[in-house]
Amino acid sequence: MTDALRELLRAAPEAAGARLPASRVLAEELSVSRMTVTSAYDQLVAEGYLVTRRGGGTYVARELPHLAPPAPTPRKAPEPPRPWLPFQPGLPDQSLFPHRIWARHLERVWRQPDPALLDRPDSFGWPALRAAIASHLSAWRGLDCTPEQVLITGGASDGFDLIGRALLPAGARMAIEDPGWATLEHTLRGIGIAPVALRVDSEGLDPTRLPEDCAAVNVTPSRHYPTGVAMPLARRLALLDWAHRASALIIEDDYDSEFRYQGQPLPALAGLDGLQRVIYMGSFSKLLSPALRIGYLVVPEALIEKLRATLSVTGSRASLVPQPALAAFMASGEFATHLRRMRRTYARRQAHLLEALTPLSECLDLAPDPSGMHLCIDLRPALGVRITDAEISRRAAADGLTLRALSSHSVLPEPPQGLLFGYAGFTESQLSAAAARLCDLLAPLCAGPA
Amino acid sequence: MTDALRELLRAAPEAAGARLPASRVLAEELSVSRMTVTSAYDQLVAEGYLVTRRGGGTYVARELPHLAPPAPTPRKAPEPPRPWLPFQPGLPDQSLFPHRIWARHLERVWRQPDPALLDRPDSFGWPALRAAIASHLSAWRGLDCTPEQVLITGGASDGFDLIGRALLPAGARMAIEDPGWATLEHTLRGIGIAPVALRVDSEGLDPTRLPEDCAAVNVTPSRHYPTGVAMPLARRLALLDWAHRASALIIEDDYDSEFRYQGQPLPALAGLDGLQRVIYMGSFSKLLSPALRIGYLVVPEALIEKLRATLSVTGSRASLVPQPALAAFMASGEFATHLRRMRRTYARRQAHLLEALTPLSECLDLAPDPSGMHLCIDLRPALGVRITDAEISRRAAADGLTLRALSSHSVLPEPPQGLLFGYAGFTESQLSAAAARLCDLLAPLCAGPA
Repeated sequence: MTDALRELLRAAPEAAGARLPASRVLAEELSVSRMTVTSAYDQLVAEGYLVTRRGGGTYVARELPHLAPPAPTPRKAPEPPRPWLPFQPGLPDQSLFPHRIWARHLERVWRQPDPALLDRPDSFGWPALRAAIASHLSAWRGLDCTPEQVLITGGASDGFDLIGRALLPAGARMAIEDPGWATLEHTLRGIGIAPVALRVDSEGLDPTRLPEDCAAVNVTPSRHYPTGVAMPLARRLALLDWAHRASALIIEDDYDSEFRYQGQPLPALAGLDGLQRVIYMGSFSKLLSPALRIGYLVVPEALIEKLRATLSVTGSRASLVPQPALAAFMASGEFATHLRRMRRTYARRQAHLLEALTPLSECLDLAPDPSGMHLCIDLRPALGVRITDAEISRRAAADGLTLRALSSHSVLPEPPQGLLFGYAGFTESQLSAAAARLCDLLAPLCAGPA
Repeated sequence: MTDALRELLRAAPEAAGARLPASRVLAEELSVSRMTVTSAYDQLVAEGYLVTRRGGGTYVARELPHLAPPAPTPRKAPEPPRPWLPFQPGLPDQSLFPHRIWARHLERVWRQPDPALLDRPDSFGWPALRAAIASHLSAWRGLDCTPEQVLITGGASDGFDLIGRALLPAGARMAIEDPGWATLEHTLRGIGIAPVALRVDSEGLDPTRLPEDCAAVNVTPSRHYPTGVAMPLARRLALLDWAHRASALIIEDDYDSEFRYQGQPLPALAGLDGLQRVIYMGSFSKLLSPALRIGYLVVPEALIEKLRATLSVTGSRASLVPQPALAAFMASGEFATHLRRMRRTYARRQAHLLEALTPLSECLDLAPDPSGMHLCIDLRPALGVRITDAEISRRAAADGLTLRALSSHSVLPEPPQGLLFGYAGFTESQLSAAAARLCDLLAPLCAGPA
């Protein structure tokens, strides 16, 4: 009786609001006991299909309960993708992240959230996080800026999107490094910016080769991606000169400079310029975790208003959920402690990897790198005459290794040859095992007849 | 002594790694006590400028401590922006959000994170959240889809970005509703899509007016934004017909249909189509909080591969931090409980607002709305002949009210006149006070001589 009545109500939405016969009347009509009818009515009232009104009477609910079911059918979650393989570059070791501390910060900031977290958000991001980043940059990157100049983004590509929309004319040309960040070309074209690739040399991008008609240039002066070379002071000054002369913007991508293992890094280019023509771009993807999707821009004072105008239309793309927790994590000093710990760990891993690759020293030009999270290794002639980096990468992939070819980071003809060994995200034993597999793969190629 | 030595080390980075004289030797050279020297050495070792080695000897640290200072200078956080004012539309009441429960979920999922959360992310988002959304849509929106069809985005504009990049040719035309979501036009132009505005009538967008050369159309069939009208079945079928004929995509933005106060809503258009030519777009900004920056698309099976190819380049823009917590919040039933609670609250607030605006019934065409989070109210002739909605909006702003003009949501000439009263985000007493202020503002205009 209950089931039949429920089906009837489901099939006849036009009955919403109709009055049902009294239980006595319906029981007589259907030749069932009155108890059967009243218990069906009661059950369907409990389920929300029927309502009773003051003054008596049972009615079909206007708000049908299938809109608010007590328990939706659970669905099986899709399979997660295959895990990262060595030597995937740019991965922090997230298993060493202080998860308990982080989870405690998340819980604390959201349990009784600051009322400002629930009100109109600042399109530049959570103020305390912007202050913590300004403080971090002053200490670690020699960059003095105010918290007002810090703009939280949803990551690097969101940052480029915003710069393109707010600060560059449609169809503007932007000079980019070649080789460089492989997806940047695609990101720029997607937002209507024409990338102009310039081949870098052993000192990074050469400012004398910059076309005057570029509205902007993207550089990685602290550690060129992916070769790892640092841009010397003379070129930095020439680059700033060019930007002032061409009224162009420099976008300085400083993605992992905190991981410096020896010597003194040149401070951020943006600091040298006093944040006049340089936009500094940072991220927590490599320092902490790509899961955060939190990056930031540090922008010249003169550009703040334009960026705010664009953000007032598009809104911020950065989730607010991690921002107050990250601010607390930074202000407490736990962030700096974690970076120092990771710096020691990654330095050990780099040394371990170089040691494990020693059998290939005839094939690969093995050399330590004073910074970063991956090694960019040239092919020695003994190997380079026989095989391309792309072919090595293909064969390594078949062997369960992600060994990116340097040439795949280039769009210009005759790209340089090399291999990228990401080591930060893998334990020493993972690195040993992967290096051994690579030795098996490459040693015969190197030793064989030319 | 300590300060002088520290300054010396700072000014001479080339000294990194050099061995310092034994404390006895330096004490003699400088004519100070040996104790002075040893205590300076000790202090600088503690600060990280010097290191001692096994076997004796004090050396200048290779990793200079200004790269990792013990305590960076804290910066003062910028002032948060001014709070939202009544009648700002589209705001959920976040003070009624179950913060403790949410914070507990955040803490639980991140304290000992599922290893898959720390490995290669699925570009479509956290699998358990996609399953929870599929289950929610089946129960609340009559939309049957697999979790594999659900794609987590960083919000609506991120969703449009991705659709534009992955599925539409450069320069494609997209029909949009007019009036409509005010920032959509700008969002589309920013990604190289040409918006084609079509005036809606009392049944929403008229499919017979759709140009055949549009590659896509964006509609809000369940509740037109901002007028609130629902598209009847006949138009929905005609719209699907057009899409099949023109090989076009329909982007169904279903932004607050969960807040239905009476009667039975038409299920999602995407369900009627069996997810062939319709992309369904949802968000948690209005259901829970805009702070999440989490939206989603439900996409036809046939488009999954193209979307994955684009995401493999751009990466996901959605932060992973809230995703597993939101999945747990949904799977536990707390999400549905919260929605039901908010539905009751918002229904009461709408009734309260209408009651509070009664003194203006000669000026405003007050009528309840069976759904949504704001009322779109027409101006009655008595008021409409004297003043435009834009001018009312301007005067209300001077009085501390955000009363959006319907005409500001239109780009076509002779836009319809009306006022948007967001009520969901404000308490009954806030609504009373704001309505009273508006009565003071409008009553004289309405009663005065024409």
